[in-house]
Amino acid sequence: MEKDFGGFKGVLIIGLGLIGGSIAVSLKKEGFKGKIYGFDLSEERVKTALEMGAVDEAFTDLKEVPWDKIDLVIIATPVKTFEKVAHQIKPFLKESTVVTDVGSVKGELVEKLERIFYPNRFIGAHPIAGTEKEGIENAVEGLFRGKKLILTVDNEDESTKRLEQFWVDLGSRVEVMDPHTHDFVFASVSHLPHAVAFALVDALIDLSKETGIDLFLYPGAGFKDFTRIAASSPVVWKDIFIENKESVLHTIDMFIRSMEKLKKYIQDEEEDRLVELLSEIREKRLSLEKEG
Amino acid sequence: MEKDFGGFKGVLIIGLGLIGGSIAVSLKKEGFKGKIYGFDLSEERVKTALEMGAVDEAFTDLKEVPWDKIDLVIIATPVKTFEKVAHQIKPFLKESTVVTDVGSVKGELVEKLERIFYPNRFIGAHPIAGTEKEGIENAVEGLFRGKKLILTVDNEDESTKRLEQFWVDLGSRVEVMDPHTHDFVFASVSHLPHAVAFALVDALIDLSKETGIDLFLYPGAGFKDFTRIAASSPVVWKDIFIENKESVLHTIDMFIRSMEKLKKYIQDEEEDRLVELLSEIREKRLSLEKEG
Repeated sequence: MEKDFGGFKGVLIIGLGLIGGSIAVSLKKEGFKGKIYGFDLSEERVKTALEMGAVDEAFTDLKEVPWDKIDLVIIATPVKTFEKVAHQIKPFLKESTVVTDVGSVKGELVEKLERIFYPNRFIGAHPIAGTEKEGIENAVEGLFRGKKLILTVDNEDESTKRLEQFWVDLGSRVEVMDPHTHDFVFASVSHLPHAVAFALVDALIDLSKETGIDLFLYPGAGFKDFTRIAASSPVVWKDIFIENKESVLHTIDMFIRSMEKLKKYIQDEEEDRLVELLSEIREKRLSLEKEG
Repeated sequence: MEKDFGGFKGVLIIGLGLIGGSIAVSLKKEGFKGKIYGFDLSEERVKTALEMGAVDEAFTDLKEVPWDKIDLVIIATPVKTFEKVAHQIKPFLKESTVVTDVGSVKGELVEKLERIFYPNRFIGAHPIAGTEKEGIENAVEGLFRGKKLILTVDNEDESTKRLEQFWVDLGSRVEVMDPHTHDFVFASVSHLPHAVAFALVDALIDLSKETGIDLFLYPGAGFKDFTRIAASSPVVWKDIFIENKESVLHTIDMFIRSMEKLKKYIQDEEEDRLVELLSEIREKRLSLEKEG
């Protein structure tokens, strides 16, 4: 069956960064027949997007966008700007245009955006894909192929099914989850690991200062992989941590509890308990390998 | 110049696991002309080592080892067994035989071993290389090529220089460090990251139980890399944590402090401080990329 990308013919990507850019180049690669429009406040990013051939047309002024041709808007700006962007584009939308996003925090934000866009349909979406790089110049063709994409909807309607098809045709494995469960899950498997990586590098900076030994000259096996994500964008992550504050703080508390438990076992030299704990952890981690 | 591996002609590797096995197969690969002997309590590992051609001869009984041909002994058993092994092999050693190890904890243990082996020379060594796998069947040719090796000696003598040449000829970049500094450095850059990875997986197990959602079904980008080392050997790591207890507990405390700082900034929504902190961390992490 030929791909129809949910029947969308004119896609506007707002925010020409890594994810927005990767959607554009992936659409071209996967055989999208419609038009791809880009919007960004930065002249330079608009120029880069056009030069790369990622988009067919691109704008820095919302008034110049050919709104009658747009039937899908993808908000790919930082999460923190979503509400502002929503209020700015809302007056321009045709009634049938579907709006979505690619943000990694959902929860109440999705509920707010659904209200702002009504009667237009807003559908929260979160592609579980990315790199620690930034900017459209680092856009990756096929970034979403084989990756999960979470649609955060309570009930599936016609628009949801079209958006699902859009992402399936980009190669994603689509899953549906309610917005609050989504936030808890990603606080646990993404936001917490990032917080931990940031804190680990921070601790090594402090330990280096304390002793006058530059510990960063001794990155042992695994250390680089481990802290690779600590090089992620400070502004993006500041926003995510604060937007998803409640879930993030809960997972940090649980993590500190685990760290304290491990510390206590070491302090008390509880050899059997340590081996038992590390074995359970190892088994869980190895089960991930199998699932691929 | 032809490699002479420090002039050693008969090398006995005690403990035919991943590291011991990798030394054996790497010696063969790098053109070692002497004989390689292996010792292990397990018949099966001895059999595997011989079948792989990793060693020329191998034994499960110390009395059968041709001690007069051995001029270098490498202890490659778990750190915890070092003292026992030392007492067992000491009566057999020729006076000129040099003894070394490949353990990741030094400190007082090295001082103890120096005393036990006297008048034989014991030189602590720690190759910064490994995988999360175990066993001689996973031995890697060239595992030490381009990797650091730390010799924990206070003053360099003839034997130290020979051992240094041995490791240089295996492709290692040799560095000298006093045993206590070594333990602090590796607590920071290796033992702490392992503790953190273990605790992270443990927290996710607890969070999954708490909510009834199997979080391990959603390993986000970076998560697998991040927790890869949590699959490391429980017994090896229990030993390392306890052997290097003092330094490990200190680095865990510093890390929890960093985690609490990050938590506080998120809780109080201190956006500027968060961005400043994450930027400093990012810069430090990126500087590692450059050093390669």
